[in-house]
Amino acid sequence: MARADYPQPVVELIAELKRLPGVGPRSAERIAVWLLQHEKANPVELSDALLQAKAKVTSCDTCGFFATDEGCSVCDDSSRDEQQLCVVEQATDVLPLERSGVFAGYYHCLGGKLSPLDHIGPEDLRITPLLRRVDQAPNVEIILALGADVEGEATANYLAEALAGKNCKITRIAQGLPAGGGLDHADDLTLMRAMQGRR
Amino acid sequence: MARADYPQPVVELIAELKRLPGVGPRSAERIAVWLLQHEKANPVELSDALLQAKAKVTSCDTCGFFATDEGCSVCDDSSRDEQQLCVVEQATDVLPLERSGVFAGYYHCLGGKLSPLDHIGPEDLRITPLLRRVDQAPNVEIILALGADVEGEATANYLAEALAGKNCKITRIAQGLPAGGGLDHADDLTLMRAMQGRR
Repeated sequence: MARADYPQPVVELIAELKRLPGVGPRSAERIAVWLLQHEKANPVELSDALLQAKAKVTSCDTCGFFATDEGCSVCDDSSRDEQQLCVVEQATDVLPLERSGVFAGYYHCLGGKLSPLDHIGPEDLRITPLLRRVDQAPNVEIILALGADVEGEATANYLAEALAGKNCKITRIAQGLPAGGGLDHADDLTLMRAMQGRR
Repeated sequence: MARADYPQPVVELIAELKRLPGVGPRSAERIAVWLLQHEKANPVELSDALLQAKAKVTSCDTCGFFATDEGCSVCDDSSRDEQQLCVVEQATDVLPLERSGVFAGYYHCLGGKLSPLDHIGPEDLRITPLLRRVDQAPNVEIILALGADVEGEATANYLAEALAGKNCKITRIAQGLPAGGGLDHADDLTLMRAMQGRR
């Protein structure tokens, strides 16, 4: 007797779902069964959304954010402040800043951060395009909005040096206590940065 | 200035992913971005797997387990024990039993369990087909492998009554301590069932 298993198409669907980030074998099975059995499931629409997104979404040549054939919603918006250019690690870092509404300038996504251990050097990031953009926009303020981890720090320092001779102002977003956080929950490094950055 | 957001196809993909069980807004965004940006991602293959599974996978008319045009891998397997019929709630309950290798008979998936609060009565479950199967297989042993919750109990009691007059033997899977579980972690009801079921 052969042990029964899901039919081959279900096994293949589970295998594809299992590859997604944060989806383990159990979740993949649960999602696959849900997609095939639940009345609210619509696998055809999901399949369509995947193909549409894959076919239509590209990366903006200028800023590195998501773009389509119709252009980039950030770079094409002439109502933004030309005097501010915010440098972030990933295209996904743009969204939290946009949602918060605290920034109204343009962006530049590096596509990562310097990380020698992962063999990611300056040539792997979109640093040359950044320098070119700065040359074309005199007196722009470059706001380095990189992560507060070791690689983020190293990348910020590298950029500060690379931009040093240019006609631009360089700032970094502040590090300190997160909103709602008490002193008792802050680690030593956060407290040190908060103290150093006092105004 | 309009706040930048993901291009429409990405927003739609995130919306579809968010509907999956166990996938929240954050995970949906993470999965969508991964699918579009990661070099190991293959959204087209996932899309294809979805369409294939949706098109090819059906439910076996006899047992309720997953089937394809080629048939049901359980019902078509003549090397199984005809004298044993295991009744489970869902088609997905078949897999754990098959993987454990403890059962070599046929299955009957009810498609749910009695649950008055959710308006699920006997007519919503595949009980009439079960009675018909039992009529066609004299002296079969019906093993009720339903959940150990209130609805599972109620369903088992209902089935035991419905099958009472038939030419079949009715058994239930045992309830008691789970393997590896100590007495100190068992709740009162589990201990009571374990004590009642002592051999």
